[in-house]
Amino acid sequence: MTLHIALVHYPTVDKQGDVAATSVTNLDIHDLSRAGRTYGTDGFWIVHPYPPMHRYVHRVLRHWKEGWGSTYNPTRKESLHVTEMANDLGEVAARLETAYPGREVVWVATSARRTATHLEYREMRRWLADENDDRVFVLVFGTGWGLHPCAMEEMDFVLEPVCGPTDWNHLSVRAAAGIILDRLLGVGREIV
Amino acid sequence: MTLHIALVHYPTVDKQGDVAATSVTNLDIHDLSRAGRTYGTDGFWIVHPYPPMHRYVHRVLRHWKEGWGSTYNPTRKESLHVTEMANDLGEVAARLETAYPGREVVWVATSARRTATHLEYREMRRWLADENDDRVFVLVFGTGWGLHPCAMEEMDFVLEPVCGPTDWNHLSVRAAAGIILDRLLGVGREIV
Repeated sequence: MTLHIALVHYPTVDKQGDVAATSVTNLDIHDLSRAGRTYGTDGFWIVHPYPPMHRYVHRVLRHWKEGWGSTYNPTRKESLHVTEMANDLGEVAARLETAYPGREVVWVATSARRTATHLEYREMRRWLADENDDRVFVLVFGTGWGLHPCAMEEMDFVLEPVCGPTDWNHLSVRAAAGIILDRLLGVGREIV
Repeated sequence: MTLHIALVHYPTVDKQGDVAATSVTNLDIHDLSRAGRTYGTDGFWIVHPYPPMHRYVHRVLRHWKEGWGSTYNPTRKESLHVTEMANDLGEVAARLETAYPGREVVWVATSARRTATHLEYREMRRWLADENDDRVFVLVFGTGWGLHPCAMEEMDFVLEPVCGPTDWNHLSVRAAAGIILDRLLGVGREIV
């Protein structure tokens, strides 16, 4: 399997439904990197168009990968190994094309809202488990109140929302990313 | 089912294995409350012995439950409805005895480390789904490098660790709590 994850800070929607950019949150960098490392993903793209946010993330990465943090807690260094910044999903697409020449890239959005047609976990789990499937999958998470429709339109699939036994599912992206990776790749269980 | 979650900040272990108290993290309050609300848990106990930490958490709770935050984002208010502070697990036990007189309380620790005997997800999932099982379950999460052995000894069960397809599982407690609740209560799948 080849699976990347992307955390998009722009274009997202705010609570009024307007287009918005959100700030990068320190714990998002770590939590999604650690979840990605646990489930064996091949890359984690932090997507933000604003240069000062790139400088902030690079400073955090440097601390844990090369600075004092790299010896204080080496597991952080291991988890941040494939964490990268990109300005937008177009840049992610271009860099994936360079990294995986000739291979199809499949964009899978996540959303807390139920859509008319969605990709089921069991289906995507099957794709990821199939050794003959050489597509490059990108699982896309939105921050704020979710990915903006203009980004949603570019996706190939929208994964079914995460649901518990209640009608309430306002999960943090840190929990949702962990749960979705576990539904797709968790060991010691099957989804039937 | 009756299920509570508890996030323990003391006694935990630090990276040397010594007993330690960790600070409460703002996003832990929200992320575990939101995950608990999504999966229909009956209570979320933030366990810390240090009074200033209680004041800090109460201030955060007040902001979202009664203050400006309660109208800015009402979903936060909904998620924090059953979030409480306690000084230690003994206080949690006493308050659960008062809330559920005569009912057995079952303490289930979580751990990233594999133990000789552990409780399987499918077993606990069965207990929670059984309408005739009137036990009160408490799922206990440790911060830092995990629950201290002296707290571990008081537990009735240790849940099996969360594993992906790699040998690395240093998940954040925010992701781990979401994943474990989803393994126990997620809808749209069965664990076989």
